[in-house]
Amino acid sequence: MEKCNEFMRKHYPPGFTYQEFAPMFTAEFFDPQKWAKIFAKSGAKYIVLTSKHHEGFTLFPSKKSFSWNAMEVGPKRDLVGDLAKAVRAEGLKFGVYHSLYEWYNPIYLEDRRTGFATQTYVETKLWPDIKQLINDYKPSVLWSDGDWEAHDTYWNSTELLAWLYNDSPVKNEIVVNDRWGIGIPGKHGDFYNYQDRFNPGKLLKHKWENAFTVDSQSWGYRRNMELSEIFSMDQLLREIVPTVSCGGNALINIGPTKEGTIAPIFQERLLSLGDWLAINGEAIYNTSPWDSQNDTLNGDVWYTCTKTTYNARNPIAKPSRSDTVTAVYAIFLKWPGNSILKLKDVAPSMLSGNYHVQMLGQDGYLNWQIIEGVVNIRLPRKAVVKSEHAWSLKFSLKSY
Amino acid sequence: MEKCNEFMRKHYPPGFTYQEFAPMFTAEFFDPQKWAKIFAKSGAKYIVLTSKHHEGFTLFPSKKSFSWNAMEVGPKRDLVGDLAKAVRAEGLKFGVYHSLYEWYNPIYLEDRRTGFATQTYVETKLWPDIKQLINDYKPSVLWSDGDWEAHDTYWNSTELLAWLYNDSPVKNEIVVNDRWGIGIPGKHGDFYNYQDRFNPGKLLKHKWENAFTVDSQSWGYRRNMELSEIFSMDQLLREIVPTVSCGGNALINIGPTKEGTIAPIFQERLLSLGDWLAINGEAIYNTSPWDSQNDTLNGDVWYTCTKTTYNARNPIAKPSRSDTVTAVYAIFLKWPGNSILKLKDVAPSMLSGNYHVQMLGQDGYLNWQIIEGVVNIRLPRKAVVKSEHAWSLKFSLKSY
Amino acid sequence: MEKCNEFMRKHYPPGFTYQEFAPMFTAEFFDPQKWAKIFAKSGAKYIVLTSKHHEGFTLFPSKKSFSWNAMEVGPKRDLVGDLAKAVRAEGLKFGVYHSLYEWYNPIYLEDRRTGFATQTYVETKLWPDIKQLINDYKPSVLWSDGDWEAHDTYWNSTELLAWLYNDSPVKNEIVVNDRWGIGIPGKHGDFYNYQDRFNPGKLLKHKWENAFTVDSQSWGYRRNMELSEIFSMDQLLREIVPTVSCGGNALINIGPTKEGTIAPIFQERLLSLGDWLAINGEAIYNTSPWDSQNDTLNGDVWYTCTKTTYNARNPIAKPSRSDTVTAVYAIFLKWPGNSILKLKDVAPSMLSGNYHVQMLGQDGYLNWQIIEGVVNIRLPRKAVVKSEHAWSLKFSLKSY
Amino acid sequence: MEKCNEFMRKHYPPGFTYQEFAPMFTAEFFDPQKWAKIFAKSGAKYIVLTSKHHEGFTLFPSKKSFSWNAMEVGPKRDLVGDLAKAVRAEGLKFGVYHSLYEWYNPIYLEDRRTGFATQTYVETKLWPDIKQLINDYKPSVLWSDGDWEAHDTYWNSTELLAWLYNDSPVKNEIVVNDRWGIGIPGKHGDFYNYQDRFNPGKLLKHKWENAFTVDSQSWGYRRNMELSEIFSMDQLLREIVPTVSCGGNALINIGPTKEGTIAPIFQERLLSLGDWLAINGEAIYNTSPWDSQNDTLNGDVWYTCTKTTYNARNPIAKPSRSDTVTAVYAIFLKWPGNSILKLKDVAPSMLSGNYHVQMLGQDGYLNWQIIEGVVNIRLPRKAVVKSEHAWSLKFSLKSY
Repeated sequence: MEKCNEFMRKHYPPGFTYQEFAPMFTAEFFDPQKWAKIFAKSGAKYIVLTSKHHEGFTLFPSKKSFSWNAMEVGPKRDLVGDLAKAVRAEGLKFGVYHSLYEWYNPIYLEDRRTGFATQTYVETKLWPDIKQLINDYKPSVLWSDGDWEAHDTYWNSTELLAWLYNDSPVKNEIVVNDRWGIGIPGKHGDFYNYQDRFNPGKLLKHKWENAFTVDSQSWGYRRNMELSEIFSMDQLLREIVPTVSCGGNALINIGPTKEGTIAPIFQERLLSLGDWLAINGEAIYNTSPWDSQNDTLNGDVWYTCTKTTYNARNPIAKPSRSDTVTAVYAIFLKWPGNSILKLKDVAPSMLSGNYHVQMLGQDGYLNWQIIEGVVNIRLPRKAVVKSEHAWSLKFSLKSY
Repeated sequence: MEKCNEFMRKHYPPGFTYQEFAPMFTAEFFDPQKWAKIFAKSGAKYIVLTSKHHEGFTLFPSKKSFSWNAMEVGPKRDLVGDLAKAVRAEGLKFGVYHSLYEWYNPIYLEDRRTGFATQTYVETKLWPDIKQLINDYKPSVLWSDGDWEAHDTYWNSTELLAWLYNDSPVKNEIVVNDRWGIGIPGKHGDFYNYQDRFNPGKLLKHKWENAFTVDSQSWGYRRNMELSEIFSMDQLLREIVPTVSCGGNALINIGPTKEGTIAPIFQERLLSLGDWLAINGEAIYNTSPWDSQNDTLNGDVWYTCTKTTYNARNPIAKPSRSDTVTAVYAIFLKWPGNSILKLKDVAPSMLSGNYHVQMLGQDGYLNWQIIEGVVNIRLPRKAVVKSEHAWSLKFSLKSY
Repeated sequence: MEKCNEFMRKHYPPGFTYQEFAPMFTAEFFDPQKWAKIFAKSGAKYIVLTSKHHEGFTLFPSKKSFSWNAMEVGPKRDLVGDLAKAVRAEGLKFGVYHSLYEWYNPIYLEDRRTGFATQTYVETKLWPDIKQLINDYKPSVLWSDGDWEAHDTYWNSTELLAWLYNDSPVKNEIVVNDRWGIGIPGKHGDFYNYQDRFNPGKLLKHKWENAFTVDSQSWGYRRNMELSEIFSMDQLLREIVPTVSCGGNALINIGPTKEGTIAPIFQERLLSLGDWLAINGEAIYNTSPWDSQNDTLNGDVWYTCTKTTYNARNPIAKPSRSDTVTAVYAIFLKWPGNSILKLKDVAPSMLSGNYHVQMLGQDGYLNWQIIEGVVNIRLPRKAVVKSEHAWSLKFSLKSY
Repeated sequence: MEKCNEFMRKHYPPGFTYQEFAPMFTAEFFDPQKWAKIFAKSGAKYIVLTSKHHEGFTLFPSKKSFSWNAMEVGPKRDLVGDLAKAVRAEGLKFGVYHSLYEWYNPIYLEDRRTGFATQTYVETKLWPDIKQLINDYKPSVLWSDGDWEAHDTYWNSTELLAWLYNDSPVKNEIVVNDRWGIGIPGKHGDFYNYQDRFNPGKLLKHKWENAFTVDSQSWGYRRNMELSEIFSMDQLLREIVPTVSCGGNALINIGPTKEGTIAPIFQERLLSLGDWLAINGEAIYNTSPWDSQNDTLNGDVWYTCTKTTYNARNPIAKPSRSDTVTAVYAIFLKWPGNSILKLKDVAPSMLSGNYHVQMLGQDGYLNWQIIEGVVNIRLPRKAVVKSEHAWSLKFSLKSY
């Protein structure tokens, strides 16, 4: 914060306000089709755009935010609508992030001053904005934020969700997260976010989502970000793979520039992720957590599995967990020097003799043997392996 | 309008919006004390500041206009509050102009779309803003505008005025104009404005006000105004003197610059007016219309009078008209070449022999005679006369 | 200066440079025809435009000032050329102001560092720029400035003037002032400026010019100028009339705005001056100093005269002083309360009986008598007098 | 170009000039130490900064470019001096790029108009600027550009180079390229650039340099660059490795942002290159071309060698080619699927039996055999190999 203040002092006139930045948000290079193609190539299944952050500037032409939205100042276009269309044309789901509270909105501040006894902000700004978002853009995900200063009774969360699930135009599809007021996170919602960057490393009973940033330091684009602060592919997979193993989804944040572009370093991470998922996606998409999350002997190996049925209504929904496992996947984040991968938790299944092992992306089955209760799998020669950064083994029943 | 569009095309990037002008409204030279001193010297008794014009940008920190007000964008100060304080320190009354409607406010536009069946704008923006203005700045005048698209029932005008007169903190002082909805102008209000620049040239039964501009072409400051477009002192007095004779007040508009200054040409007009009023003010302030407005023989001579009682509650209030005349003033806008002023309408009074005649600002009584029903008054030698542009004769009873 | 620094600190980012103001000099309203018409109406006979001030920014496309001129930054037009054309179309002479030195030019600074032993700046920048000005715009006046840090030997002034008078395209017309190096002012030049606002109040032997500003505080436009700082018509005539009486010309400076306009207050002063000169110009234009400059008895009365011949080659040239007086003019700056003007210095002429007296702008001759060596002139009734602020009496030989 | 014009039309006011961009070049995040560290880590041995490009804006406080340089407009610092210091502190050589001609400089344009009969630009701007650069910053490399419109006789190249080599403060170190006038490229200079991105794929007799860009589309930073337009590590090595094999140096261009940063994608490429050179640098630095450039059988394998002596006066100088080879390096850009690398051109050396083979970065010697005149080298298991993207084999004499 102090660094931020010092930067303002050095480079702006005294008294420059946040609001005066808005005309500099020009988005002249914003090309939603390009964005959508990058997202599709990255392997993403759903996209969540910030429709309004805590400063209250709406990226859509809010009917309640006159002269403080992207239609009237800066980009002069409906960024939410334009991206929604492009994202769907690529076959992806479109969702919106939306901040309940607003730092500078005096109507909200007045409600807060009353100890949230009044709800003027909720009635005259919040609900109308959310309804406009839902009615106009029909998002598959409503990702709520900025709930932590007030209880759900102030936000009218129950009523809102009732409307969403029963009467809204997206009632059959919408999923929401859990930020709907003090005490709600981790308690209610189609999926839980808990805090930002939540990644427990163990199985949770309820569908959850790990929302984290490729730039380790910021959710917004920083013009002065250093390479060392940006997640490498290894770091990204160390977030994503354990998340999926533990029943979570990964929501990977990148901050676009004020010109409307996605920085090439972010493009590179997203496309590398797409390359990885093109090979290993079978171990990620539509999978369920398995009995073990990461291997007892080798903690860098994470398991997922597929089952006979999968609720694919939407990609964030919680899969049913009561049916038969059809395959187990072991994703390992480090290639063993001698090319022998040792695993303990799959040993019981392998003992039955009905299973064989493949590496995703490679032809043929791998040789293995069980030595003192540990499965030793001979990996393919690295020189012919296509995947980089992490690799997936598939354990499946031999077909008779 | 076409000229305006052409100017934008030539000097701004395509798509530049009105909202993006706001950060350029810097007011870095705004010195309310300087303004107030100029107003005091001009002879003004009350000042009306535009607190919000049709574009909706508030010059005070409106609790309902987040990020679109002078506190957050541009001047970064409470222009209304600062000027109110300075104006009152000079002994003047402070009033506020306020536009009911807003060109760009989607909440208003939505109400309009419904044929004004809904009143969301009135309830969530208009009333709160007006109440904030009244409660925080306690203005003596509320000068309403922008009423013409809807009826008073939409604006809730009756209720608002009831609150103003009965419950507001300015209930004992406030006066309002007549722009409170379709059909209201000229019907209700402490004083009537009718249309802009209204100047009927005849006596009206109800107190009224002539609101006009020193820059004949614009209410707002124009960076490219030409001298020929600006009212001369002669033109100003030709607006003001007849207005007062006919029972009106003069509200003289000048547009300040975006830097917060009053252009020197406007300063000059205001101070010249002050010089004139220092001599002739007795014929203007606290006067009432007389039996004749301008002289039957010499239409360039306008009459006012003083009476035994005067309701000085506030300078715009309508004086009681039922009492005795104590003096009659004849203000003439053109000096007769031979320095003999001929008047017909005062002849009956002069015939009684109880009256004598002075020129305001000059010592002694003037010689006069009645010739064929016309009073011929010998004016002082011009070389010793102090007033310029127009001159006032006072007809008063000789004191015994 | 400290105020200026404080202003910069308050309103600009730290480190903002003078150079960064240049793009804000937009001149979007610059209309040279409008300017020229105002100048013509003001009664001016020649116009001097600042072609380059001390900061070195040229208002013409200097071939030596790349990327630091009005063609490439800001107005993007040849302001000098455009105004020259418009001014001449109105029948006025066109001249250019030009600063020899430049505050920030490192080439000049390097010459200075050597004690002006090198002349790189003069050879590579100064001479080429001046030659371009003369060759391209053929000015009637070259008004030099910024000479005071170096001797004429550094500036190559002698050589330059030799070129101007003998070989340049304006050799038959050009007049120059006296700022051509240390020790030169008041010694060489067609007319002398000495210091700014030079107004000696007595006759000088050499043609001179009083260069002064309508804004008493600045040569450049100040966005925050106050009316009280601007010369009134009375103050202007108190500069101009004595100047002419003492053999000088008046060069009246106004600073245009960055938008390219002449502020209305300056327009008003210029047009008021034009009104005055329309009546009194006969006592000003083409006149010579008379034997007395201001009257011995009444110092507020200033004399000029006309002679049988007048060198009208150009309006600033020094008139020949060796011929017969054909008329004497007494310009008085204050109207006497009793309308009797008393003069001592014209008494000898009047005694001859061959002279009569008129007021310029009025019909007929005035009555006068000599009492104890003082001429007592009965002025016309003020009510019929057309001139304002100052008045001219003409003493001329009765025609037989 | 048309796209560029269209962009300007859409996003800037009409008439916006190149010069008006200068204040937007703010460099507020420029941290020369950070830059230098990145360069050092990238394995670079010398850095060449653009001190002035064709538009003439100098990144140093040129004594001849007043108000059009980084000290007075934009960054307000001596970017050349600051970077020189930081780069040297990291042990790297510092050089400067410098454009002879200037697109907009009217002094140059005037010389051109005369068919380069006059040399005013050369004498008053070009030479002084170059001398200032050399004297103030003592660069090890002077990388000349923009020479193509005139012959070296116009530029005074011979005289300049004589001064550089005989009298300048860098006479013992300076190396220059070959852009010194029409017909000079490829004829004179310490090293030859020929055209941009020159990469002949065969041995040249004279030291040369391949100057190319990481962003395949531009030398300057493009805010809208796409990842697909940026060289991958494979593409970079396909430029660098053949260049070194053929006796050239690689000058790898990245365009910094207007904020003064190096885009993370460029940081990533540079650091990846550093990682590669940390392992493979022995095959690159201080090497000479060998008898064969790329292998007759496997064109993707490129050779370099070391010799008994090496002229290390500066990294771009041409090594002496008359001495004994001490080691041969084969750099291969594609890993053979079966991990057997087949080479033909080293077969004669290997037949002697005195050589052994290592892979840089790996321990131990590799097994090989000659089959039908082709050396078959068994590569290490890929899983243990540290290098990525390309690999180097070293053939050296067994030590007795």
